[in-house]
Amino acid sequence: MDAMLSPQPVQLGLPAEAAASSMVRRFQQVRAQSVALIRPLSAEDCQLQSMPDASPAKWHLAHLTWFFETFILERFETNFKPFDASFRVLFNSYYNGVGDKYPRPQRGMISRPTLEQVLDYRSEVDERILAVLTQHPDDAELAKLVTLGLHHEQQHQELLLTDIKHALSFNPARPAYARQWPLAGISPQPLRWIGFEGGLLELGFDPRSDGDFAFDNETPRHKVYIAPFDIGSRLVTNGEMMAFIEDGGYRRPELWLSMGWDWAQTNHAAMPLYWQASDHGCGYQNFTLQGLVEVDAHTPVCHLSYFEADAYARWAGARLPTEFEWELAARSVPAQQATQGNFVEGAAYHPIPLQQQSPGSPAQMFGDVWEWTQSNYNPYPGYKPWEGLVGEYNGKFMCNQFVLRGGSCATPHSHIRASYRNFFPPDAQWQFSGLRLARDIA
Amino acid sequence: MDAMLSPQPVQLGLPAEAAASSMVRRFQQVRAQSVALIRPLSAEDCQLQSMPDASPAKWHLAHLTWFFETFILERFETNFKPFDASFRVLFNSYYNGVGDKYPRPQRGMISRPTLEQVLDYRSEVDERILAVLTQHPDDAELAKLVTLGLHHEQQHQELLLTDIKHALSFNPARPAYARQWPLAGISPQPLRWIGFEGGLLELGFDPRSDGDFAFDNETPRHKVYIAPFDIGSRLVTNGEMMAFIEDGGYRRPELWLSMGWDWAQTNHAAMPLYWQASDHGCGYQNFTLQGLVEVDAHTPVCHLSYFEADAYARWAGARLPTEFEWELAARSVPAQQATQGNFVEGAAYHPIPLQQQSPGSPAQMFGDVWEWTQSNYNPYPGYKPWEGLVGEYNGKFMCNQFVLRGGSCATPHSHIRASYRNFFPPDAQWQFSGLRLARDIA
Amino acid sequence: MDAMLSPQPVQLGLPAEAAASSMVRRFQQVRAQSVALIRPLSAEDCQLQSMPDASPAKWHLAHLTWFFETFILERFETNFKPFDASFRVLFNSYYNGVGDKYPRPQRGMISRPTLEQVLDYRSEVDERILAVLTQHPDDAELAKLVTLGLHHEQQHQELLLTDIKHALSFNPARPAYARQWPLAGISPQPLRWIGFEGGLLELGFDPRSDGDFAFDNETPRHKVYIAPFDIGSRLVTNGEMMAFIEDGGYRRPELWLSMGWDWAQTNHAAMPLYWQASDHGCGYQNFTLQGLVEVDAHTPVCHLSYFEADAYARWAGARLPTEFEWELAARSVPAQQATQGNFVEGAAYHPIPLQQQSPGSPAQMFGDVWEWTQSNYNPYPGYKPWEGLVGEYNGKFMCNQFVLRGGSCATPHSHIRASYRNFFPPDAQWQFSGLRLARDIA
Amino acid sequence: MDAMLSPQPVQLGLPAEAAASSMVRRFQQVRAQSVALIRPLSAEDCQLQSMPDASPAKWHLAHLTWFFETFILERFETNFKPFDASFRVLFNSYYNGVGDKYPRPQRGMISRPTLEQVLDYRSEVDERILAVLTQHPDDAELAKLVTLGLHHEQQHQELLLTDIKHALSFNPARPAYARQWPLAGISPQPLRWIGFEGGLLELGFDPRSDGDFAFDNETPRHKVYIAPFDIGSRLVTNGEMMAFIEDGGYRRPELWLSMGWDWAQTNHAAMPLYWQASDHGCGYQNFTLQGLVEVDAHTPVCHLSYFEADAYARWAGARLPTEFEWELAARSVPAQQATQGNFVEGAAYHPIPLQQQSPGSPAQMFGDVWEWTQSNYNPYPGYKPWEGLVGEYNGKFMCNQFVLRGGSCATPHSHIRASYRNFFPPDAQWQFSGLRLARDIA
Repeated sequence: MDAMLSPQPVQLGLPAEAAASSMVRRFQQVRAQSVALIRPLSAEDCQLQSMPDASPAKWHLAHLTWFFETFILERFETNFKPFDASFRVLFNSYYNGVGDKYPRPQRGMISRPTLEQVLDYRSEVDERILAVLTQHPDDAELAKLVTLGLHHEQQHQELLLTDIKHALSFNPARPAYARQWPLAGISPQPLRWIGFEGGLLELGFDPRSDGDFAFDNETPRHKVYIAPFDIGSRLVTNGEMMAFIEDGGYRRPELWLSMGWDWAQTNHAAMPLYWQASDHGCGYQNFTLQGLVEVDAHTPVCHLSYFEADAYARWAGARLPTEFEWELAARSVPAQQATQGNFVEGAAYHPIPLQQQSPGSPAQMFGDVWEWTQSNYNPYPGYKPWEGLVGEYNGKFMCNQFVLRGGSCATPHSHIRASYRNFFPPDAQWQFSGLRLARDIA
Repeated sequence: MDAMLSPQPVQLGLPAEAAASSMVRRFQQVRAQSVALIRPLSAEDCQLQSMPDASPAKWHLAHLTWFFETFILERFETNFKPFDASFRVLFNSYYNGVGDKYPRPQRGMISRPTLEQVLDYRSEVDERILAVLTQHPDDAELAKLVTLGLHHEQQHQELLLTDIKHALSFNPARPAYARQWPLAGISPQPLRWIGFEGGLLELGFDPRSDGDFAFDNETPRHKVYIAPFDIGSRLVTNGEMMAFIEDGGYRRPELWLSMGWDWAQTNHAAMPLYWQASDHGCGYQNFTLQGLVEVDAHTPVCHLSYFEADAYARWAGARLPTEFEWELAARSVPAQQATQGNFVEGAAYHPIPLQQQSPGSPAQMFGDVWEWTQSNYNPYPGYKPWEGLVGEYNGKFMCNQFVLRGGSCATPHSHIRASYRNFFPPDAQWQFSGLRLARDIA
Repeated sequence: MDAMLSPQPVQLGLPAEAAASSMVRRFQQVRAQSVALIRPLSAEDCQLQSMPDASPAKWHLAHLTWFFETFILERFETNFKPFDASFRVLFNSYYNGVGDKYPRPQRGMISRPTLEQVLDYRSEVDERILAVLTQHPDDAELAKLVTLGLHHEQQHQELLLTDIKHALSFNPARPAYARQWPLAGISPQPLRWIGFEGGLLELGFDPRSDGDFAFDNETPRHKVYIAPFDIGSRLVTNGEMMAFIEDGGYRRPELWLSMGWDWAQTNHAAMPLYWQASDHGCGYQNFTLQGLVEVDAHTPVCHLSYFEADAYARWAGARLPTEFEWELAARSVPAQQATQGNFVEGAAYHPIPLQQQSPGSPAQMFGDVWEWTQSNYNPYPGYKPWEGLVGEYNGKFMCNQFVLRGGSCATPHSHIRASYRNFFPPDAQWQFSGLRLARDIA
Repeated sequence: MDAMLSPQPVQLGLPAEAAASSMVRRFQQVRAQSVALIRPLSAEDCQLQSMPDASPAKWHLAHLTWFFETFILERFETNFKPFDASFRVLFNSYYNGVGDKYPRPQRGMISRPTLEQVLDYRSEVDERILAVLTQHPDDAELAKLVTLGLHHEQQHQELLLTDIKHALSFNPARPAYARQWPLAGISPQPLRWIGFEGGLLELGFDPRSDGDFAFDNETPRHKVYIAPFDIGSRLVTNGEMMAFIEDGGYRRPELWLSMGWDWAQTNHAAMPLYWQASDHGCGYQNFTLQGLVEVDAHTPVCHLSYFEADAYARWAGARLPTEFEWELAARSVPAQQATQGNFVEGAAYHPIPLQQQSPGSPAQMFGDVWEWTQSNYNPYPGYKPWEGLVGEYNGKFMCNQFVLRGGSCATPHSHIRASYRNFFPPDAQWQFSGLRLARDIA
């Protein structure tokens, strides 16, 4: 059981050499993807920090490199010398064990190093990591840490996109990050209910089906009792959200949690984040990474806070699923279908309308939008944080956050799995967060 | 099942007449207790509001009467006339369904009505409620609502005490509310671990053992799987907390949740609320409702935030119990022992040292201090709020709060039961909140 | 010159005995007036603090007594013992030289001592002061300090009224402090301009005409050059303010100082403080110390911030006078007329309509409302604060405040004089503050 | 008199053609200087906004161009087309008359247009302004507005430097803007007092001596009475400030204005802005535009708030001069000496030690540091704002600010004159602000 509690390639099952070479390829691919993501951006774009919760794109690029330098090079290089000694503090995110941190709300104040210098930092550290990998082809601990570093990198790739979207939204010109809508005809899909019997089940990360890596917060696999429930066959759409709005949903306190109602009043919430009343008087416009577009009724709604998702569900006479209900439903999806979602590789950078549904299986479980669950982000029974410095990765955030599941249009496809737990406070809106309904079976 | 979802005397099992007369006695007793609680206070004391979360004693007295007037007299009196029409807004706490509310942070600004007028308001409404009870001896709905009103009254009796304690603490003279320490010799009690096997169990309100009333949030009774665990034989003490302090507990981020660490830094937390370094240079003093006293090592620690309780547990190599673990343990306590706790009737208004333990049964499960659990305040599977205006009582607060169990030295004895769920945000300190440890069985 | 810089009865000109007996009478009269002002108030009313800038009535009563105890009894009693040692901190307002201070925003948290105990404190200190006066009939320093204490007391009498008005305004019942409008027929008075030639003049406190006491901030008398100007023959009225409102005055940035416009936007300012749109759809209602009344067009407007007064003046094509223009105009008013204003002794507790004007002399210069001037509260050339502890009385507040002149309906008549300088920050509204127009002579 | 109230070249006294050609040269020179100032900066540096009161360098460059486009091209071009229609809002600073404004605290969020695009914007508008100047060689109104635009540009050149200094100070590397200290031997200069008789004088802008342009706030020239006074022969130095610190100056409330003391407590002020305790344990280091340096005792102290300047003066047994005392002293300085100060052209970007003094004339009146005066920024008697859109330039800021005089090491030499009034709120520290002492003559 202990093995599952640390960052790991679990039973890679490959000869060490092949594993190392696959690791090298994966390392190169994931690291290159981060740099590819800033191609549409100027050095000034990469400098922007629009709120304390978001970070500049340049900071993401540097911090991801800091992670490899601090947790791997420092340990595996014999005569380790830092690229720049000041980076240890400058690009530490939240690891108290590593030492001081530059204050998060001021990350946008770091104009030096420049973007160019940060890219040089990446190149050098990449080369040195590759050298270390070559020197230690069999080192399991090294393999574990590189794997962790790459999953960490993928998490930040998504944050880089959501953070730059938030930053660009402050520009009245509503500039587009990209212009490449995947074309698609619309084929409206009715919402159906799919029933599950539940029972006393084992849930959590399962190396037999969930791949060779998990974060500590997905473990240990443990028993949960789930009562029978129905879950929605697809995500809630913009069109359904518009009906909520037109029915006065944002003005009716009985639909909201008390804290949600306060949030809505304080923030004058009247529609999802990035929506605005349409210039031509009816309908809504939506700021996306593809610029300002008309709100499409059949596209999954996103950028909802937990409060909005919860209020919508109550208005619809339903509720949010628990994370275990969600996981049970997700594990029922045929493997082939699960991999065909709308992930970052599709370059839509936005949810897209559902084209078809299979009768007995919920659609859109992976990709498009993260799905709010009613589950708090709590430790699983028997949870133990990873040992060492990376022990600060997850456990210390288990308070006043809710679990989201399933990945989004900004998630790398290879990053998501049925046991994956994302988490945000209930007022967070700037992630690609939406919802799927659930209900009790009477 | 439906019957359990509404405010209720469940199966009173008495002839209507006897029930009504018992109801009358209970009504008179509970209502009188509220007024008794302000006897040590001046009109000016009763006016104090020291923070938005707390209310003036006078406001409590008025609001409790408003509850009976609004939810009972308005409905059951034929020619209902309000005592004072303006009170409907002035003393509404948070019921949007009832209409406007006077802003909570300004309750301390209501000097008129005076305390004397509020006491007149209580007397008149009491008489009218008694008249209604006499006229409708068989009305089950009336009985339900009066019962609810009395449990509501008891909740506020505890708040009245914790709120006035908070308010008086602003006075540099540290004035005592009462002077009547129950005398007790000290007999140090070692901490022992008591094991439970767990399994798939039914938990939540059980009318067979938990009495004739429950709040909606304790229902429905439902299945939960609990893994084997140990629980502490007694509460954590001041002495143990002092060891945590001396070991640098408040200065070591690795012991804290990230949000807790931020809270501790922002609030310069270095010891429990109401503690201060002792005048004579070593040890601590504690502001209590009995004035300023030396901190006693064997008394259960209280006025901890969730953050402090969680950090202490981590430091002690243990964790907080879940609310279901707690309930399972509480249901193992012999009935006689459960009723002998330190409740408000004992007039200590402070936790007291444990005198003895039974070998196989956890002590201090009821009374002394509310025990933080690691469970978020979430709806039980199948939860439905009460119907009607009182539906706002509980459900809308199920967000970013943690469950506390077991009652305290400020809780009326007849108010507590094994299924009772109290709840506060993790930074709340002004309740009599402490902790008991738990741990996994490897 | 030095003599003028310390608190003083200047040129008492009476034999010591007669002076002392006159001092005793004055002491008794002024001290009794403070207590008389709380007669319409309950102990709970006297506990209210509605904002950090305001204090509870009970605190005023205690602090005024603290002033006599600290600055006189401590010095002149041989075996001085404080009434209660804790009061030295509790009722210190802002004298760093005296030592610690209880935090101002929490004055409303001091329920103990009770009002009754504070009245006992007053009685005892009064007796002891009278004893000291009897023992030291010739002590000039004592006489100076008692005189200062009485002027200090009168200042707080006005604050007591404006503070309780502010506090009572939080009560939705809009309770009246008093019910005794002085009756008066209305005789509309046109605004006329009265011209002054100005020149190089001596201004500031003049013991020949301004009585036997001045605060240090009114000294030294000094030369000022004033260009020719016109000043309004009367105060600006509610009717004129309504015309400003109807002309969009609160919505036109070009009428406002930049900081005033920000203030108006932040505070959603749309009318003077204590006004509200009338229930019956047109006109305005005004919360006064006499309860809620219809706004009367001929009554001087009051409770304006500097920002509103300045914006009104700009809208009217005029400007606020400087404090020196005001003083020059005030010194032109015949002595008899000056003493017939609407002061606190009239018990209107509100400005009243002007009944008649004399042709060449401005009316309403004294009483009714404090008049905002465009002069910052700065030291006069050669200004020196009083020596000793009372040196903190005025000088340290000379920053970001504006001078108001002339006294109000809440000012004791014997407290005001032509050289008197009141001062408040430009956003303060809760004083009886209004305006009179001025303009350049082309 | 009227002529003096509008933006103006007063009495150019040149044939129109020569005037126009001199205007062209001046336009080119001043505009080029703005671009020269960002040469040491990257695009990312130019994006930084470290507080709402400061603006990104890029924003300054764009806003200055907006000024010429909006106030001149819109009016003088026949078929005016904006460079980019969105810039009208984006780069409007505070002109309500021009329409909407992008929120000031979010200027740092404008990554697009890029710096390169802003430089293109500058080039195009420059060409178009030169074309307009060629077409209208005799247009006095045009000449006035271009002159105003160039003085406006010079004001922002100074702000650009103080803002980028503030932004770079957030970088733990303390990066230098420039590396070009002007070398200078140290020759300590004693502080001497220079007396002035004062009297009834005419002060304010005087075209005979102050050049051909003034802002409206320097007018009209008017009579002021000044009592006799002494003024310090030089600026207060770092060494003198260190003596203040060592004498507990920052810990003694009696030295401070009440509002200043609150400011110092809230901000934990213990030394001037940009100072830090020296790494090697004694003395101080100073972040400058030339990087981190040891504090030099003979250099004028700068980056003081008004509160610090006022407290220092009180500690020194003196006071700040009034702005009229300062102006009188400044007008006594021989013209030749006045022009030899330390201005931006010297490229020190920091005050420098005084090398010598003349006996009867105060040194360092111009350049080095802006000198706080005790005068509030108020309108001169008879003041009228300029007509038209530029009327918002100055008047609306006349509230809660203090006047500073004399220019600084970041001021263009041709921008300053004896009548020039700079102004900042009393807590502002990020300008090159220091002080000179004054005192009454007994």
